[in-house]
Amino acid sequence: MSDTWSAFEARMNELSDLGGVMGLLGWDEQTMCPPGGRGARAHHGATIATIAHQRVVDPAYGEAIEAAGSLPDLTVAQHAMVREARRSRDKATKLPESFVRAMAEQRSATNQAWEHARATKSFADYEPALKKLMRLKVEEADHLKGDGTRYDALLDDFEPGMRLERLQPLLESLRDRLVPFAQRVLDAPQPDTSVLSQGFATEDQYAFSLRVLSDLGFDFEHGRQDLSTHPFTGGTAPSDVRLTTRVWEDWLPACLYATVHECGHGMYEQGHAPELWRTSVCGAPSLGLHESQSRFYENVIGRSLPFWEHYLPVAREFVPGKLDGVDAEAMVRAVCAVGRTPIRVESDEVTYNLHILLRFELEVELIEERVAVADLPEAWNARMEQYIGYTPKDDLEGVMQDVHWSEGLFGYFPTYTLGNLYSAAIREAMARDLSIDDHVRAGEFAPILGWLRDKVHAVGAVPLGEQLMIDVTGKPLQIDSFMNYLETKYNALYNL
Amino acid sequence: MSDTWSAFEARMNELSDLGGVMGLLGWDEQTMCPPGGRGARAHHGATIATIAHQRVVDPAYGEAIEAAGSLPDLTVAQHAMVREARRSRDKATKLPESFVRAMAEQRSATNQAWEHARATKSFADYEPALKKLMRLKVEEADHLKGDGTRYDALLDDFEPGMRLERLQPLLESLRDRLVPFAQRVLDAPQPDTSVLSQGFATEDQYAFSLRVLSDLGFDFEHGRQDLSTHPFTGGTAPSDVRLTTRVWEDWLPACLYATVHECGHGMYEQGHAPELWRTSVCGAPSLGLHESQSRFYENVIGRSLPFWEHYLPVAREFVPGKLDGVDAEAMVRAVCAVGRTPIRVESDEVTYNLHILLRFELEVELIEERVAVADLPEAWNARMEQYIGYTPKDDLEGVMQDVHWSEGLFGYFPTYTLGNLYSAAIREAMARDLSIDDHVRAGEFAPILGWLRDKVHAVGAVPLGEQLMIDVTGKPLQIDSFMNYLETKYNALYNL
Repeated sequence: MSDTWSAFEARMNELSDLGGVMGLLGWDEQTMCPPGGRGARAHHGATIATIAHQRVVDPAYGEAIEAAGSLPDLTVAQHAMVREARRSRDKATKLPESFVRAMAEQRSATNQAWEHARATKSFADYEPALKKLMRLKVEEADHLKGDGTRYDALLDDFEPGMRLERLQPLLESLRDRLVPFAQRVLDAPQPDTSVLSQGFATEDQYAFSLRVLSDLGFDFEHGRQDLSTHPFTGGTAPSDVRLTTRVWEDWLPACLYATVHECGHGMYEQGHAPELWRTSVCGAPSLGLHESQSRFYENVIGRSLPFWEHYLPVAREFVPGKLDGVDAEAMVRAVCAVGRTPIRVESDEVTYNLHILLRFELEVELIEERVAVADLPEAWNARMEQYIGYTPKDDLEGVMQDVHWSEGLFGYFPTYTLGNLYSAAIREAMARDLSIDDHVRAGEFAPILGWLRDKVHAVGAVPLGEQLMIDVTGKPLQIDSFMNYLETKYNALYNL
Repeated sequence: MSDTWSAFEARMNELSDLGGVMGLLGWDEQTMCPPGGRGARAHHGATIATIAHQRVVDPAYGEAIEAAGSLPDLTVAQHAMVREARRSRDKATKLPESFVRAMAEQRSATNQAWEHARATKSFADYEPALKKLMRLKVEEADHLKGDGTRYDALLDDFEPGMRLERLQPLLESLRDRLVPFAQRVLDAPQPDTSVLSQGFATEDQYAFSLRVLSDLGFDFEHGRQDLSTHPFTGGTAPSDVRLTTRVWEDWLPACLYATVHECGHGMYEQGHAPELWRTSVCGAPSLGLHESQSRFYENVIGRSLPFWEHYLPVAREFVPGKLDGVDAEAMVRAVCAVGRTPIRVESDEVTYNLHILLRFELEVELIEERVAVADLPEAWNARMEQYIGYTPKDDLEGVMQDVHWSEGLFGYFPTYTLGNLYSAAIREAMARDLSIDDHVRAGEFAPILGWLRDKVHAVGAVPLGEQLMIDVTGKPLQIDSFMNYLETKYNALYNL
């Protein structure tokens, strides 16, 4: 047994190391790499990705996986390692090399067309490239789908184990309950947010963000924070997790909530049990689960009255004189303000999922070839009107706002909403064991992190996403926890 | 032809990319990596090094090299690419894998013993490990030496093409001329250096170093500078070169000259012609040549009167009030002060090579088994007394000061002196075309860099080291350029 397992383990370790190296290449490119070094960096990334792909499709790796999988007395974690290794290898071997190359080229072409079309503000300049890409995505899904649907095949890259037949009714029920609630909140009188845009020095905001990171429990012995244009969580291993944030001098929440959001991702990665390190299950079961941790910290913790009851006096030390005229209630109302806005990444906690739902519905229709690429702008705008009550002025405010589809990312958007659903379900379960609000109000974040470590972070990707939900909350994924959380919170904030 | 060459080129490119990736891993470890991430980093580095080694020893690579080498009409650069690829592959295939592993383990053990022995100040705690390491180095040299000597085999890692029968008489003649000259300078009245240790704020020194870097011609579009404990030049490619420096608040030269030194290395790497990028000759022909560029900028340019005539007013802006009481002559005398000091890395331009010569002589005797490891401290101290006139108080001041031997680096030390010899020969050749002093005094560094780019940097490792010397200076490597430079400079500085 030991030799068979070791042979499999050595290959898993090597792939994990290559993943760590790619993590460093990517982090460095966004934070440290001099501008003229990007060309060389592309070569380095491609070389490592090619080597990793060769290692994955190597038939000897397939044999090592199956030999390990047929060993008696595997632990639950070992079974999961075999399952995940097999899943990603199957995927890699199912796509012909010529297809992979064609897709990479088309992604790049579509990206360029997207950038060009954003400059000319003309969907017509984007449409042909997106059409070609969609044709390839259909082909990819047909290669991969097995006995599932095309959309299942795409979802599986991001939310393994999730199926359209499970997801679609869930998100439809969310839409049916969320749309009318959102209308009520949007129609209510809106709070004053001017306190957030007074102008705050970059170094003051950054210092405050480091203080909050440290309070929440991010481990600087095994991680760091830097600046980048778009905040992200990267790094090379659970012992080396790297967050980035950004600072907007005229909008206080930009830096703070980017940091708190990435902190949720980062503490998740730092929390995987050491026995999972360098294996195929050292990570989240799904992007949705990963997002649950960032959303939990950003929205559940960070956009709460107890958070500002604790942090308003602290923030005043970092931005002296600026926050003297407000109280915690005014702060939380300001950072939770909602609006009929066209851009997803600038939207609020109430409308956010509506932005996602319209994308989900459109991409299902696209992959099932029930809507034509040419008809996307109209279909997009109609749903924006229907769900949020806003009509985009142009396609920059509409279908051309996100880069995801140009990158070939279909089946990705729903993970954001799944993250919100997971985070609310986790909050409900946590509240049975802890007085979350009391801890936050007292600035005691260790019990909260300890609970998440124990129940969510440590197990990594040993369970699939929905199984983890059942383990943690006692029931499958559902929308009630989220809608109850949202309704209670915003009814109070807006005195509805 | 084209397919054969392309097959070879693709493998060269891949190896170059892996080298670039290792460059990033190493740079990051010294500058950015959180302390707790070092363990994971060791795995990443080992995995990439193993993959690179597998690629190098792959028989198909050997065939690709030979097929490319037998193509008709190769350019000079292509011939050199084949030569260098073959040289490093031959070396990699000559050492049995069991030997490579034993050597890696013994290096690590010797390093630990060295650190322990430095703590206990006892050579006896170091001796057994160094003895074992020496036995392995002898074995390595015997594997590699072919028709040369053992020392030739070790030298070839750092100074390809150099042979002991050429190097030994050269360094003996240097010693015979340098020892009496050094005594005269050391016996002369020493200048006042107190101006350099007044206490200078870290941020002021760092800002000044960036100004000088930029003036000298370091390209920040394709490079950057950061801080690390030990300054070094790293990076991933000629388009992404990364220097580090350090700041000592109580010693102004520490930061400035570390920066100027690394700048010489860095501009060399930035200057390789684009047609050499991602090939086996994208680098210096030897460590000595690489060091020639750092020494040229640090000593020839940086420790000169014209340099301080230009930079004293500039430096006064960065450290206001501190340098008002001195003139350029006093500054250059202070930064060129010599002394009978035991530690190589703290020594001066006059005695530096004597520190190297004693190491060179001892390592030749060690590898030829003419001196026993047990007798090293005594042999070291005797030569220190003879060459520099200082008797080390203990082995920390003596044989245990450098980490090199513990790392298995034999044949490395002479490259420092070769760097000095090369730099002086280059200076002499440059002086035929340019008024170096006038340019430096005027702060015009572009003509100097342009000359080096053209003659030295662009050609990379297409010529071997000594051939490059002949191309650039019209004659083989010799000691006269260096000794003439040193005697003229220090006779003037010390009024001898």
